[in-house]
Amino acid sequence: MHHNLSELSDLYRAHLLEDVIPFWEEHSIDRDKGGYFTCLDRAGNVFDTDKFIWLQARQVWTFSMLYRQVEQRTAWLEIARHGADFLKRHGVDDEGNWYFSVTREGKPLIQPYNWFTDCFAAMGFAQYALASGDSQATDIAVKTFRNVLRRRDNPKGKYTKQVPGTRPLKSQAFPMILVNLALEVEGVVPDEEIHRTIDDSIREIMTLFYDNERRITWDNVAPDGSHPDCFEGRIILPGHGIETMWFMIEAIRRFGGDRAIIDKCVDAIVNLIEFGWDNQYEGILYYRDIMDRPPVQLEWDQKLWWVHIETLVALAIAWSVTGRRDCR
Amino acid sequence: MHHNLSELSDLYRAHLLEDVIPFWEEHSIDRDKGGYFTCLDRAGNVFDTDKFIWLQARQVWTFSMLYRQVEQRTAWLEIARHGADFLKRHGVDDEGNWYFSVTREGKPLIQPYNWFTDCFAAMGFAQYALASGDSQATDIAVKTFRNVLRRRDNPKGKYTKQVPGTRPLKSQAFPMILVNLALEVEGVVPDEEIHRTIDDSIREIMTLFYDNERRITWDNVAPDGSHPDCFEGRIILPGHGIETMWFMIEAIRRFGGDRAIIDKCVDAIVNLIEFGWDNQYEGILYYRDIMDRPPVQLEWDQKLWWVHIETLVALAIAWSVTGRRDCR
Repeated sequence: MHHNLSELSDLYRAHLLEDVIPFWEEHSIDRDKGGYFTCLDRAGNVFDTDKFIWLQARQVWTFSMLYRQVEQRTAWLEIARHGADFLKRHGVDDEGNWYFSVTREGKPLIQPYNWFTDCFAAMGFAQYALASGDSQATDIAVKTFRNVLRRRDNPKGKYTKQVPGTRPLKSQAFPMILVNLALEVEGVVPDEEIHRTIDDSIREIMTLFYDNERRITWDNVAPDGSHPDCFEGRIILPGHGIETMWFMIEAIRRFGGDRAIIDKCVDAIVNLIEFGWDNQYEGILYYRDIMDRPPVQLEWDQKLWWVHIETLVALAIAWSVTGRRDCR
Repeated sequence: MHHNLSELSDLYRAHLLEDVIPFWEEHSIDRDKGGYFTCLDRAGNVFDTDKFIWLQARQVWTFSMLYRQVEQRTAWLEIARHGADFLKRHGVDDEGNWYFSVTREGKPLIQPYNWFTDCFAAMGFAQYALASGDSQATDIAVKTFRNVLRRRDNPKGKYTKQVPGTRPLKSQAFPMILVNLALEVEGVVPDEEIHRTIDDSIREIMTLFYDNERRITWDNVAPDGSHPDCFEGRIILPGHGIETMWFMIEAIRRFGGDRAIIDKCVDAIVNLIEFGWDNQYEGILYYRDIMDRPPVQLEWDQKLWWVHIETLVALAIAWSVTGRRDCR
C-alpha cells in the first residue's frame, strides 16, 4: 500500500461528506411520520418502513457528531432533532427501556429485550444534547446510561433463555460496548461515572477476556475466566475483539491509564485479523471456532461490512498511536 | 433423469441402511452418560457434547421407526430405548415442557422456550411406544401432544418478544408441524384427537397461508390472511412450504379428505421450487422476499441440506400419488 495517513483521511472524508451523508440526507428522512427510513436500496428507494431503534439512535448520533465535529450546519442539527423527537415520543417504554423496533408511525413492535439498543439510545441522546444544548436530551442520556449500568448483570431480563447456574458465561460484548458508551457520553454524564465505567470494563476485559498467551480476546468465558468446551465457549468473533481493542486504546489515550495495555490491544488487533483471515478468499470471517470445529452459526463464514470497517478503524488508530508498521 | 422410482428407492435404501445408519450406530451412542452425541465430524469424532433435545428426540424417532418399519432388530430398539431413557430423566421440566438443550450429563442449559422441541419429543415417544410397547412412553407422548396443542396459541410464552396487538402475525410453521405430529402419533393418541388436529390445521393452511392466485404458501400472514408489507410478512421459506404440502398430501392420502387439495399441494410444491430456485448457481434458496427485496436474514441465500431433502421427499410423494410428470 502506498497511501499515507493524510491521503487516506482525505479519501474517506470526501467519500463520507460528498457521497454517503448526502445520500442519507436526501433519502432517509421520514417527513410524514417522523424518524428515519433506514431500509434503502442503492437508488435510495425505501424498501421497508419499520423503525429499528438501533438505527434511529445511530443516525441521531451521526448527525449530531457531524454538527459538533465537522461543521455546524443547521441542516445536520435539524436532521438529528427530527430523529431525537421521534425517539422521545415512540422509542421508550414507561420504565425507560428502549424498544427494539416500532412501526413507521411509532407503535411498538418488538419489546425492549435488547440491552444494546439502550446503549445506542444513550449515545445518540448524549451527542444530540451536546450538539443542541437540549436539557431534556441530557436527562434522557443520563437516565438511559444509568439504566444500562443497572441492567448490565441481567441485560435480557425475563427474555433470558439460559437456565441459571448450569453454565454461567460472561460475554465480552458487554464490557466492550460500555467502554464505547462511556467515551460517547463524556460531557453529559458526570466524569466520575465515566471513569469508573471505563476502569471497571477495561479491568474485566484484561482479566477475563484477554488471553495473555495467544494475545487475542475471547467472546464468552466462565466467570473465573476459564473456557468451557462448548459452542459458545469456543466461538470467536474477530470483529468483536478488534472493536473492543480500539475502544480501549481510545479510552486510555483520552483518559490515561496503563500504557502497556495499548501494546496488548495492538497485538490482539493484529492477531485477531490473522486468526479470522480467510486464506482462500481473503477477508475476515464473521465467526471462527478456536479449535476449528464447525460453528453453529450458519453465517459464520460470511464477510460482513462492519467487521471490515471496525478493522480499518482499529488499524488506523493503532498506527497513529503506536506507529507500529504491522498496522499499516 | 433416467431413474425410475424403484431404482431410486433401492439407491436411497442402500445408502441409508449400509452407510448412514451404521455410522450413527457406531459413533453417536453416549454409553457413559446416556443419550446421543449428535455433533460428529465426517470421521465420527465427537466435536461437541451438548445435547439438543430436537436431535435426541429425532434419533429416538428414527431408530423406533426403523425397528417398526424396516426390520425388528433388537439393536435398533436398544438404541431408541437408550435415548428415550435419557430424555425421560433429563429432557423435561416439572410442567411437562421440554428443554431446548442440556449438558452431556443432562443438566438443563436452555429453557423450554421452543415449542417445536415438544413436537419432536411427542413424535419420538410415540414411535418408541409403538416399537417397544412401553406404557410410560405412551403416557409421555399423549401428555406432550396435548401440551403442544394447549400451548399452540402462545408457543413461546414469556419469551415472546412481539408487542401484542401492534402487528399480529400467524406462522405457517405451527399448523405445518401439527399435521406432521398428528401423522406420527397415530396409534398412540386417540384417533378423534388426531383427525381434529389434522382437519383444523389443513383448514388453517388452506384458508390463511395458501395463495390461490400464486399457488404457493406464505410463511407469515395477518390473522385475516392479509399480507402486512414488512420483513416478516414478505418472507417466504420455500423449504417450509414444500414440507407443509407433503405433510398435507400424506394426511389426506392416509385419512381421506378433499382430494382437490392434493392438486393444490402439488402445484405449490412445483411453484415453490421455481420461486426459490437460484438460476445462477442452482439449488433452492433458504429465504426469498416475495417482492425480491433484501431479507434481514444473513443466511437467506444459503442452500441447506434439509430444504433439498424435503423437496426430494415432496416430489417423490407428489409423483407417486398423482403421477404428474412435472414432479419427476
